Amino acid sequence: MTGVRSRVDLRTDGAAALDWAAQYLERVGEFPVLAQVKPGEIRERLPDSPPEEPEPFSAVLRDLDEVLLPGITHWQHPRAFAYFSVSSSEPGILAELLAATLNSVAFLWRTSPASTELEGVVLDWVAQLLGLPSGWHGHIEDTASTSRLAALIAARTATGRDLVLCSEQAHSSVEKATRMLGMRMRSVPTDGEFRMRPDALGDLSDAAAIVATVGTTASTAVDPVPAIADACEAAGAWLHVDAAYAGAAMVCPEHRWAFEGVERADSLVFNPHKWMLTPMDCSLLWSRRPEVLRRAFGVVPEYLRTPDAEDALSLSEYGPALGRRFRSLKLWAVLRCYGASGLREHIRRGVEFASMFEGWVAEDPDWELCAPRHFSVVCFRLKGDDERNRELLARVNAGGDIFISHAVLDGRYVLRLAVGQMHTSEEDVRLAWEVLRRESVGL
Amino acid sequence: MTGVRSRVDLRTDGAAALDWAAQYLERVGEFPVLAQVKPGEIRERLPDSPPEEPEPFSAVLRDLDEVLLPGITHWQHPRAFAYFSVSSSEPGILAELLAATLNSVAFLWRTSPASTELEGVVLDWVAQLLGLPSGWHGHIEDTASTSRLAALIAARTATGRDLVLCSEQAHSSVEKATRMLGMRMRSVPTDGEFRMRPDALGDLSDAAAIVATVGTTASTAVDPVPAIADACEAAGAWLHVDAAYAGAAMVCPEHRWAFEGVERADSLVFNPHKWMLTPMDCSLLWSRRPEVLRRAFGVVPEYLRTPDAEDALSLSEYGPALGRRFRSLKLWAVLRCYGASGLREHIRRGVEFASMFEGWVAEDPDWELCAPRHFSVVCFRLKGDDERNRELLARVNAGGDIFISHAVLDGRYVLRLAVGQMHTSEEDVRLAWEVLRRESVGL
Repeated sequence: MTGVRSRVDLRTDGAAALDWAAQYLERVGEFPVLAQVKPGEIRERLPDSPPEEPEPFSAVLRDLDEVLLPGITHWQHPRAFAYFSVSSSEPGILAELLAATLNSVAFLWRTSPASTELEGVVLDWVAQLLGLPSGWHGHIEDTASTSRLAALIAARTATGRDLVLCSEQAHSSVEKATRMLGMRMRSVPTDGEFRMRPDALGDLSDAAAIVATVGTTASTAVDPVPAIADACEAAGAWLHVDAAYAGAAMVCPEHRWAFEGVERADSLVFNPHKWMLTPMDCSLLWSRRPEVLRRAFGVVPEYLRTPDAEDALSLSEYGPALGRRFRSLKLWAVLRCYGASGLREHIRRGVEFASMFEGWVAEDPDWELCAPRHFSVVCFRLKGDDERNRELLARVNAGGDIFISHAVLDGRYVLRLAVGQMHTSEEDVRLAWEVLRRESVGL
Repeated sequence: MTGVRSRVDLRTDGAAALDWAAQYLERVGEFPVLAQVKPGEIRERLPDSPPEEPEPFSAVLRDLDEVLLPGITHWQHPRAFAYFSVSSSEPGILAELLAATLNSVAFLWRTSPASTELEGVVLDWVAQLLGLPSGWHGHIEDTASTSRLAALIAARTATGRDLVLCSEQAHSSVEKATRMLGMRMRSVPTDGEFRMRPDALGDLSDAAAIVATVGTTASTAVDPVPAIADACEAAGAWLHVDAAYAGAAMVCPEHRWAFEGVERADSLVFNPHKWMLTPMDCSLLWSRRPEVLRRAFGVVPEYLRTPDAEDALSLSEYGPALGRRFRSLKLWAVLRCYGASGLREHIRRGVEFASMFEGWVAEDPDWELCAPRHFSVVCFRLKGDDERNRELLARVNAGGDIFISHAVLDGRYVLRLAVGQMHTSEEDVRLAWEVLRRESVGL
């Protein structure tokens, strides 16, 4: 084959890229977790214009090391405890290489039958792993923001209404989606454990959807899905369940209590790119009412009509985007190379470490826990005022040994330690606690 | 580092994956371009449930070959001439491996300064290559559908109006976005060359946005942007330019005529994952009014507020998604490893081949051209009725030697040959013409 070719050779430059990747993962624990650069610093080191003549791939690898690396916050770091810990595991990484090589564009079934059908298969596999009802229609979106957007569009399509309710602890993507869609949002108060209060839902006559969260972002609270499902049923509203983070925990039977009632959801989102070892981006959206999704998203212009259209599912008719990349490949690789047993072990390890950390906080009179810990996230703070904790967070993250984030619960500034990165060991969690105590001295 | 590990080793299994990728690209021309399977056939060959115990990565590679490959439509095939030809080039593929290894989640500047700042830099680079005004704010979305959705949300935010106008040849994502957003759409008639007729825009008092297309999907027609910009200015409407495909051609000065007036756009979308050698997915959205995007999309919850927020741009405030993967890395690698000169050569090659094919059609009395050819897409048909051409398309695509698609222009069914795949040689285009003529015999 001919064509205009770069000088990049998939075998030799590929070997160098692979070596870079392997070395990076071997040494990632040695970097400061949070990038220690100032805004604009990376940009300043990059040329203002693209090169006129081709450069070798070795120049890209060199600049990745010399220019970009100081500006990288290391999400693969064993002591990345901020937000929700994510992991891009080896099978997922290699599957992304393969997906980029195939470069499938799955807007129609026929433009990528394998991608489309594998997506259906792996969504069914994950539904089984999580204990979801069989027969739900699932597909992959990039992020939970998009999955949520799609769900709320479906809710508006199904109900003809425009009010969305969620707890005051729900993810910001609910507010963002309603703003994007010109819908209205109403925040529902939470109880002492940061769970939505179904008794406070109020008038639901305009309700298009209620969003119930299983594992809120701030504290991983679990909204009472059965009571919310009752309310949805009575009001004719769409029940959307956000299990973007905590869904992963459902591979373990001991956590299934949190999924009580989700079988009544009209749609449910779960992100394997959070706690299930899959590289960004991979957000799963299931619905038991796929015909509503198709009504909302099924715009098929003449030039996309094909003879096989009646027998073959085109997933672009079930979500916002037309072009779709081969995201199912990485999820398939992860599920196969870890197996259900490996996934359970990964989840249990995260929960165990979080529980260990929770114990240390509970026992230390200078510290306090700030929310019940259900899964792998601990909300805690140094006793004293918000300022003291804000200062502690800044100190800790500037040090580079660990990276944690914060939340506001009950109007108080709290610290969050989120376990879940695949490289994290017990030693890393111990070190986090040591760093926190050390940096708290003199505050 | 410890952790729950699969048996997958990035070095050894990575070498096997890389070898698979290299061999695939070496032999891709030997496969039928369009997958020759029936709906459901791939699915049937896959297990109903995920494995309990981990499998080696070699099992994934084996099944990729044995189970999935027959269901893959080969977008990297030198004779992939359907829809718009895309190419995932070597630097892009390897950059995706690196991006998956880093697994950055760039929802805030601080969670990935390098990704955020590199995104700004490469968007500026591409703006220069395309001759766009300097100073526009650019970022990356997954697909043009999302970029369009974002642009129309911005238009509604800026104007408070809900009517979107586009030509009857505009991409289906305009209709899809307006349906998703609960906005209204009005189709504007086109002239004899399938360009929007600005004199037919009608009453614009409710107009939120007019979408002008530079390179329509069916025939690559170029709407008269200057006149549409005048109309937008007079009506106070947002001008969105869709250059998803043809934007790539603007790297060559001889095609810049098609960008006349785009400097007046409020937003413009261009997809490097189409004709600019970048793996799916990579859609660029620029705006000269970023403050409107930020007003539309800037929802920052407490737990994402950081001390550096005032100095540092978080790109999630400029588009629908919160989580963002490191998409700029592949675009950076492509721009560097091809250089401006390589990109121009790639574009010119595609245009030359299309022009060659156009010549053959023009000279053959059994065939006719159906639209002006501006870039690398030829619309043509076998003289005779729609049915004859529909039958021809089915025959040709079933043969597997080439894959082309169709469109409807002026109510007539026409065939489309889209050149642009990086592996395509003159010989491949000649073969396409031979196959078409051969299969037309007896129709």
